[in-house]
Amino acid sequence: MTEAKSAAGLRGVAAGSTKIATVGKEGTGLTYRGYSIAELADKSTFEEVAFLLVEGELPSRRELDAFRAELRAARGLPPPLREILERLPAETHPMDVLRTGCSALGCFEPERSFAEQGRVARRLLAALPGVLLYWHHYAATGQRIETQSDEPSIAAHFLKLLHGRAPTREQERAFDVSLILYAEHEFNASTFAARVCAATLSDFYSAITAGIGTLRGPLHGGANEAAMELIDRFATPEAAVEGVGEMLARKAKVMGFGHAVYRSGDPRSPIIKRIAKELAVTPEEQTRFAVAEAIEALIEREKHLFPNLDFYSALVYRSLGIPTPLFTPVFVCARTSGWSAHVIEQRADNRLIRPTADYIGPAPRAYPRASERR
Amino acid sequence: MTEAKSAAGLRGVAAGSTKIATVGKEGTGLTYRGYSIAELADKSTFEEVAFLLVEGELPSRRELDAFRAELRAARGLPPPLREILERLPAETHPMDVLRTGCSALGCFEPERSFAEQGRVARRLLAALPGVLLYWHHYAATGQRIETQSDEPSIAAHFLKLLHGRAPTREQERAFDVSLILYAEHEFNASTFAARVCAATLSDFYSAITAGIGTLRGPLHGGANEAAMELIDRFATPEAAVEGVGEMLARKAKVMGFGHAVYRSGDPRSPIIKRIAKELAVTPEEQTRFAVAEAIEALIEREKHLFPNLDFYSALVYRSLGIPTPLFTPVFVCARTSGWSAHVIEQRADNRLIRPTADYIGPAPRAYPRASERR
Repeated sequence: MTEAKSAAGLRGVAAGSTKIATVGKEGTGLTYRGYSIAELADKSTFEEVAFLLVEGELPSRRELDAFRAELRAARGLPPPLREILERLPAETHPMDVLRTGCSALGCFEPERSFAEQGRVARRLLAALPGVLLYWHHYAATGQRIETQSDEPSIAAHFLKLLHGRAPTREQERAFDVSLILYAEHEFNASTFAARVCAATLSDFYSAITAGIGTLRGPLHGGANEAAMELIDRFATPEAAVEGVGEMLARKAKVMGFGHAVYRSGDPRSPIIKRIAKELAVTPEEQTRFAVAEAIEALIEREKHLFPNLDFYSALVYRSLGIPTPLFTPVFVCARTSGWSAHVIEQRADNRLIRPTADYIGPAPRAYPRASERR
Repeated sequence: MTEAKSAAGLRGVAAGSTKIATVGKEGTGLTYRGYSIAELADKSTFEEVAFLLVEGELPSRRELDAFRAELRAARGLPPPLREILERLPAETHPMDVLRTGCSALGCFEPERSFAEQGRVARRLLAALPGVLLYWHHYAATGQRIETQSDEPSIAAHFLKLLHGRAPTREQERAFDVSLILYAEHEFNASTFAARVCAATLSDFYSAITAGIGTLRGPLHGGANEAAMELIDRFATPEAAVEGVGEMLARKAKVMGFGHAVYRSGDPRSPIIKRIAKELAVTPEEQTRFAVAEAIEALIEREKHLFPNLDFYSALVYRSLGIPTPLFTPVFVCARTSGWSAHVIEQRADNRLIRPTADYIGPAPRAYPRASERR
């Protein structure tokens, strides 16, 4: 395995082929099924994008209506799942709640054959916001919320469950665009974990559960929460320049910058930054935006790194009143569309994903009796 | 990515390095930390092997005593976890139970820092048999069993919880050896999924949950159940030769034979076959063993494939009175040791595992209005 050294972390190694997305082709491109992320963010909705990812083509008006109707109807949670969520401690990491809730839903509504995969994908897209927010309210106040809502979009449904009131049109659209941006990203770590799982011909819930657990890591989905914590540390742009400058001097990692694949910029970042700016209307929000821009300029100057999607997403979610620990769970609600598309694609032309390893351990040795050990 | 074609499923691609096990070096070898699987199966116990895998060296007598004592003490389940298990339907796939139970345990006893990883590994080794068998009895009869037992080994503990009585010495040893054989196997799909998860610096429970979900697939952990169903189809060796011959003629896949890595034989197979033969004492068991041998000889002659560990494991588990749907969960109880070792190893020299993909989807295209679609 002479290529092993260069393949650490499989960076640059094609682990398969995909028709779903391009990431970083020619340095910056991101397309879903051939459509540029900028155009999708501008003209599409999250439901259209989820349909595009899972089904391969944008929906006709009629297909979209049916898709949205099914998503709306599938928001309820089985009573024993609610009872399970009520038993998870209030201090539980919300990603552990989603991981457990997704896995448990697979016990109540198993995928009995792969012919059901589309139904399971839509069920998870519809139900995961309710899994998260049912637990969120119960853990915080003991309130048992109704997870069914009449909101027309997943974006509005999420914000309605969270705040108990429907969002404004602007809030809904801002959140909707962020879901589009987070929907899909080729063979990122969580999607790859879901494909490794799916390639054993395991069930849909196992693959999505693996994706959730993998997205939980601070090197992956946790970055927008870390970005928020960073921005929150500084009351002014000047304090941010000083504080982040100190971090750089002691070589601390600044979350929300750079990317494993993109080299010259994250094409999602300007889109989410524009939205963050539009939502920044109170003096507090405007200061926070100025702090973020000061950090961006400093990191660009000192490290030549660009902000990735996570950095300004943090400001958008803060403006929408989403608690920081729910940022990565929002990512789950969006990425479930991409994970689902990849599970379906993996199954359609499956081969077990089973790499090998370079062995660097002890040479063959004889088994010592207990008395001979150390 | 010119290597992509040959790297389908990453077969033969080193995805990292490991000190834990060799698989298939020079065609047949399997060592754990340098010790041959044959010697470990002959001289060691599962607890010693689990310690070896997780800690890197065989335990001294004193270390082994402390390790076994901690494993014995950690068999209890938190009351709300038992309540969760009681809510999972009786017809749930047992692997879904383990996936959900492992994930839920992570909510009750989270890994607050990586300094706790050894404790979490031992807790999961100790508790997963109880998670499975508490649900198993409750689902079948409504009985709430005590998951704590005084049995000295995980093997005896599992069989005691399953049958309500301690196993014989011979039964315990047979099961113990099977756990040793299933403990570890380098970068197999479930272990690789656990490492992909761990590489985002996610928590221990997420990685093991991903491993469970991945092992669930019929191309991976499900093979011993499929082998049992195959053997059960035939009342005599002659019927087996005829029936399997027909399967081969219509190119059906026969589970329990061949291997993604081993080319000339699975070194674990002769070991588990010997145990299966020793346990076959009733006429029924002896006929079943003869059926299995007839299938083995036929597949060897017609397909030049050898039985892998899963094939004769099925007979061992049947003789031990383990219901077929619990075969893969037994694999989980054993492999948790190997998964844990790999999570710890991944963390010690971490790099995000993020491959790329060959894009074979649509070329860039303009976004159509709804009225322009199809």
